Amino acid sequence: VPETTLSALCERLRGAGQEVRLDGPDERVVGVNTLDDALPGELTFLSNPKYASSLGRTRASAILVRDGVEVPSRLSAVRCADPYAALTHAIVAIHGYRNHPTWGLHPGATVHPSAAVGEGTNIGPGAFVAADAVIGRGCSLYPGVYVGECVRLGDGCVLHPNVVVYEGCVLGSRVTVHAGSVIGQDGLGYAPVGGKWVKIPQVGCVVIGDDVEIGANCAVDRATLGRTEIGEGTKFGNVIVIGHGSRIGPDCMFVGLVGVAGSVTVGRHVTLAGQVGVAGHLTISDDVQVGAQSGISTDVPPGTRVLGSPAIPVEAARRTMMAMPKLPGALRRIKELEQQVAELRAMIEQHASTGR
Amino acid sequence: VPETTLSALCERLRGAGQEVRLDGPDERVVGVNTLDDALPGELTFLSNPKYASSLGRTRASAILVRDGVEVPSRLSAVRCADPYAALTHAIVAIHGYRNHPTWGLHPGATVHPSAAVGEGTNIGPGAFVAADAVIGRGCSLYPGVYVGECVRLGDGCVLHPNVVVYEGCVLGSRVTVHAGSVIGQDGLGYAPVGGKWVKIPQVGCVVIGDDVEIGANCAVDRATLGRTEIGEGTKFGNVIVIGHGSRIGPDCMFVGLVGVAGSVTVGRHVTLAGQVGVAGHLTISDDVQVGAQSGISTDVPPGTRVLGSPAIPVEAARRTMMAMPKLPGALRRIKELEQQVAELRAMIEQHASTGR
Amino acid sequence: VPETTLSALCERLRGAGQEVRLDGPDERVVGVNTLDDALPGELTFLSNPKYASSLGRTRASAILVRDGVEVPSRLSAVRCADPYAALTHAIVAIHGYRNHPTWGLHPGATVHPSAAVGEGTNIGPGAFVAADAVIGRGCSLYPGVYVGECVRLGDGCVLHPNVVVYEGCVLGSRVTVHAGSVIGQDGLGYAPVGGKWVKIPQVGCVVIGDDVEIGANCAVDRATLGRTEIGEGTKFGNVIVIGHGSRIGPDCMFVGLVGVAGSVTVGRHVTLAGQVGVAGHLTISDDVQVGAQSGISTDVPPGTRVLGSPAIPVEAARRTMMAMPKLPGALRRIKELEQQVAELRAMIEQHASTGR
Repeated sequence: VPETTLSALCERLRGAGQEVRLDGPDERVVGVNTLDDALPGELTFLSNPKYASSLGRTRASAILVRDGVEVPSRLSAVRCADPYAALTHAIVAIHGYRNHPTWGLHPGATVHPSAAVGEGTNIGPGAFVAADAVIGRGCSLYPGVYVGECVRLGDGCVLHPNVVVYEGCVLGSRVTVHAGSVIGQDGLGYAPVGGKWVKIPQVGCVVIGDDVEIGANCAVDRATLGRTEIGEGTKFGNVIVIGHGSRIGPDCMFVGLVGVAGSVTVGRHVTLAGQVGVAGHLTISDDVQVGAQSGISTDVPPGTRVLGSPAIPVEAARRTMMAMPKLPGALRRIKELEQQVAELRAMIEQHASTGR
Repeated sequence: VPETTLSALCERLRGAGQEVRLDGPDERVVGVNTLDDALPGELTFLSNPKYASSLGRTRASAILVRDGVEVPSRLSAVRCADPYAALTHAIVAIHGYRNHPTWGLHPGATVHPSAAVGEGTNIGPGAFVAADAVIGRGCSLYPGVYVGECVRLGDGCVLHPNVVVYEGCVLGSRVTVHAGSVIGQDGLGYAPVGGKWVKIPQVGCVVIGDDVEIGANCAVDRATLGRTEIGEGTKFGNVIVIGHGSRIGPDCMFVGLVGVAGSVTVGRHVTLAGQVGVAGHLTISDDVQVGAQSGISTDVPPGTRVLGSPAIPVEAARRTMMAMPKLPGALRRIKELEQQVAELRAMIEQHASTGR
Repeated sequence: VPETTLSALCERLRGAGQEVRLDGPDERVVGVNTLDDALPGELTFLSNPKYASSLGRTRASAILVRDGVEVPSRLSAVRCADPYAALTHAIVAIHGYRNHPTWGLHPGATVHPSAAVGEGTNIGPGAFVAADAVIGRGCSLYPGVYVGECVRLGDGCVLHPNVVVYEGCVLGSRVTVHAGSVIGQDGLGYAPVGGKWVKIPQVGCVVIGDDVEIGANCAVDRATLGRTEIGEGTKFGNVIVIGHGSRIGPDCMFVGLVGVAGSVTVGRHVTLAGQVGVAGHLTISDDVQVGAQSGISTDVPPGTRVLGSPAIPVEAARRTMMAMPKLPGALRRIKELEQQVAELRAMIEQHASTGR
């Protein structure tokens, strides 16, 4: 059972540069949990004031909380400026990261003799590694994973169950791909000939940088020519679809059900919220933030926050969205104004003629 | 070959509380099919009046139809108040539900010795069950299914091919998950530190209630802490994405390509139509119905029907949507009004000065 | 190493009916690549004028380009009217299409004795073929593929890793399905009974025509009764979701994250751009083009181009979208007009009374 003490946790947080104070007795804590789900012996946290109403009924033994927030006296409080940042440290200290199975090269795996597999890599039953693949050290390939010909994986990669990497794709080190995601399938490359679609061979590949994490059931097209790229440190949620030849910069975050068409360039540290769509051949510059369900149909300059379909700067988009339900009324008011103006014109003209 | 007679079917419908009358000779029927696809010997149905035009050309031998609707005399008619409800009974009577294969514990499956597998459960080749998993009685695990450590499945669960359930998740009884769906992958839990994303271990799980059915290629995040929940009797279409820590109530229906962000609470019997998105930390109350492609960005009170992005009550949304194409014309009319008002003002002022 | 010469490529293009001229020396080319990625010895192309700025720095040895476009003198230029169409020929000539592995019937595959497998078909380890399936000649079933009972596949089909085809579905010849896609899962067929959802057995199937290509992680529902159809030559991108009983015509293209509800009829050569949604029971006629993120909620007549949610003719939709950000200002202008009109009315009335 993993555990730590509140005083040890405080030390750890101070080591990470946070000012922290322990209010109440030191306790051994065996888990971290939400206010509602925590059991005695567990540490909880309050970061979003929205959840303050759950404070009274939590069964936790201790809490991470800002200075000044009142908590029930039965709880030991670890007080700090940023409880959410402290939470990460607490979870790592108590629970740590996932341990992967130690299959070695499981006899139920199919690994081509020409493939090179690094030291300490585990390959589960039903996983498949094709000819000339090169897999680094300390990787985990779960059951049902498919690694195509000439694929290269760096060290410490984790491919969760049923991940598929098509031939020739390249993953850096410490890349994690969650279950069911597909890297390197053919994109929609067809030439229209007489009302039919003639397939263009898709001979490029996908290149994924170090420390990328990709959610479940995503799909990243290989390039028609050259490479589709995902920059280092970028994180994808679930069901992200990336078109052929697009280049996503480093340290981006794409939330879920995002679709990026082909030949798009996305800069560094760009956030695309849920269900965003990006049309082909566009450029989204560094530090852009795109709101949920937006549709990007023009280039987006650096540092801007946009929203809507088509997306415009977020303040303008919010004003427009607030105004939209007033449109039917506005149409009635315009009609009434037109009648009144006609009436006034008639009054003036009549007045002018009778006045003369 | 499955079959029944029209008279037996009528008995069954009466047993289920429907008033029903057979017009025409009793027949043996060997299948149920649509008006266009039915062959002689099959039963068809007319529920949506939109399809009445196909009545004349159907080759079916019998039809489920409302009282008063005229049908070709060659068809025996089973007349009832609700042909669509009767249809379910007819399909069950004639075709029944899917029979699952009887592999037992197939030698091509990999089941950890510490896993407990209930009586009558079938596990196909290439399926994988990890340590300390507990699987109930009468379950079907198709080829390529992955069941992680300490997962618990109730009785009568069906995991179709290539379904993945991550470690520690809990499924109730009679849960059906269609092919390629993933339960319990890590959500987008990262702390921003100096422009980088630092992973927060996702140590919670997913808990799915009894009688849930989940479509193909869905993805349900495990909670960061505690649990992501899907309430009993809830049905998901394909490619539904649920964020970490969200709690979906019982008897909901999510249609397809729906995205729910993290920490969302959804009540009982909520319908989310296709491509709906729900932002994080919101509450959607009981019996809410959300129209297709809507974006939910505020809490939704019980029993309301909403539509649009951002979603508003459906009647207001429809009026707004109808009005929107009139906006360019409205802008022109406003401009013209402004010119006319300026002109009238000039006329009045001139009149006033000349009138004096 | 694949290669060709520029003169041989010119011959090939002439054979395909293109007028073509070689400017500069004949060269051996060993690959086709983008302007930015091409290496010496490779052929590149310029089709979209947007990328002309990359011309100066390309390291390619030769280029496909329109007449009249100036290119650096170190490049041999293959000049033609349609460089993009020529590109397909060049890629096929030099790289060809993907070669599939020659596993034969791999001993790690599970093929039921009652299944019929055609000559020259390769079935990889971990693939599963159920009873009474009929698989044509020259097919490739990659690892992790599941083919259900009584499924029929024509000749030359390619099922990439972890594709699932449920029982009874029928694929024509030369159908390609990319990794993780699912064909024939149950759709959302439930009858509402007392606030619960009662499952209607889904006893129909999916029928896919010749030369269809389906992207990664798609999901095509089986019909409740009868068939869901995908017409010959139709191409799907990634994560396309098709509801039960819908019939998609031939030679369509659906881009990515598209959702089509149940019982929809789509004609021939219809394009649905990214994230489009189509409501149930509608008809989209031949040659329709639907813009990205549109929502189709009424029938669409042949040959029309529509956009928006709800979708309207594209020109009207673009005018509306351009006008929307002007709505908040328009509301202010209406208010001001109302004040001015009231003021004018007062002036007229005062004038009338004082004038008398």
